[in-house]
Amino acid sequence: MDLLNQHKSIRRFRQTPVSVELLNQIFNSGCRASTTGNMQLYSIIVNKEKEMIEQLAPLHFNQPVVRSAPVLLTFCADFNRFVKWCEFRNASHGYNNFLSFFTAAIDALLVAQNVCIAAEDVGLGICYLGTTTYNANKIIETLKLPKYVFPVTTLAMGWPDESPVQADRLPLKGILHTETYNDYTKQDIARIYAFKEQMEESKKFVAENNKENLAQVFTDVRYKKSDNEYFSEGMLETLKKQGFL
Amino acid sequence: MDLLNQHKSIRRFRQTPVSVELLNQIFNSGCRASTTGNMQLYSIIVNKEKEMIEQLAPLHFNQPVVRSAPVLLTFCADFNRFVKWCEFRNASHGYNNFLSFFTAAIDALLVAQNVCIAAEDVGLGICYLGTTTYNANKIIETLKLPKYVFPVTTLAMGWPDESPVQADRLPLKGILHTETYNDYTKQDIARIYAFKEQMEESKKFVAENNKENLAQVFTDVRYKKSDNEYFSEGMLETLKKQGFL
Repeated sequence: MDLLNQHKSIRRFRQTPVSVELLNQIFNSGCRASTTGNMQLYSIIVNKEKEMIEQLAPLHFNQPVVRSAPVLLTFCADFNRFVKWCEFRNASHGYNNFLSFFTAAIDALLVAQNVCIAAEDVGLGICYLGTTTYNANKIIETLKLPKYVFPVTTLAMGWPDESPVQADRLPLKGILHTETYNDYTKQDIARIYAFKEQMEESKKFVAENNKENLAQVFTDVRYKKSDNEYFSEGMLETLKKQGFL
Repeated sequence: MDLLNQHKSIRRFRQTPVSVELLNQIFNSGCRASTTGNMQLYSIIVNKEKEMIEQLAPLHFNQPVVRSAPVLLTFCADFNRFVKWCEFRNASHGYNNFLSFFTAAIDALLVAQNVCIAAEDVGLGICYLGTTTYNANKIIETLKLPKYVFPVTTLAMGWPDESPVQADRLPLKGILHTETYNDYTKQDIARIYAFKEQMEESKKFVAENNKENLAQVFTDVRYKKSDNEYFSEGMLETLKKQGFL
């Protein structure tokens, strides 16, 4: 639990490489995560070559963490391997649908989180790139992902070259619901977001972006309606293209 | 890493309850998981009351693990809390789309896996229920989930009353890809699935179900095309109903 409690995302890494042996040890632990029907519906694409990381960087909107990381791991929902197995065994499969995609995505994400913890346990740092689904189509092209494979998240990994302050979290009360969902009143919301809104860093964000409050920084700058809708459409089209819709 | 390496799903629990204090400790560690833009787009519904667990059991196809567990945790992708915050702060949001659902689902799944590890660290056992998305609509009704909230997975949790054999895993080579996806030949597939196919347990499954091979047990009995398509449609309809499509 101490390890989990100490988690911080790391965005600047030393140039020291991560050995194949250590990575395999991490992957072995990662793959102990639970998986639907023990089907292991995921693949991990390991990128270390500078040229490949250069190709991937713009697809992650050139976040500096990408080029800083000696290792990029793209976790994919993968029914291709399983479908091939079925085909070679004369078993008529039906995994070209949304439920199957989501099932495989769950598998991939649980492994990703296990890989994080295993990595942090040996002193490595990680940062999730939420941008993978935004540009799934181009990532599929770059990583040559076949039908029934879809990238769901990417981890930047390496030896930490910074020690940032740990991020804030909402109070547990704001996250938990007992027996059924207790919907939030205006007062509940004020209480849950009070700490976050009063942080110096938040006030700086609001001022820098010329907004009235922190919520507007999210809606008008960081996670905008127009972007969400654009990338949403792209993701659905790409799910179709990969055989899942 | 040792903890991760020892993971086994537990499906039979002692009737000893799990204290609120211990659960909160686990949730606090769980919520340290990375989250998109630190938005924490998830909620956890905690079910301990016998009556509620009875209502949920058939929605999970009466898997015995559900009624055995003193605690059921349903992890939800949740944009409701965030959207309410935006509304109360006069921020015009745009999270009624598929990308936003998937972003929140990622958050929820990373927390779920962290909760598993924190729970196992104190000696508790867990089992994922993959059935949550199959009957999302009815689970939403039972747990009274509002718009912009969608259940993505459920954990059964408690003090273990069994010590099963650890499940097999595919060889790491079959999961990893270096730089780009290396698609599988017939020989690759044979090699990757050889161990699984030769297991005594697998042979028993094949015989019991009157099938030619293990792949057919998956396609014809466990994860059938007709079921996948039926539940897929239901999931997409429910995503629409919850405001995400």
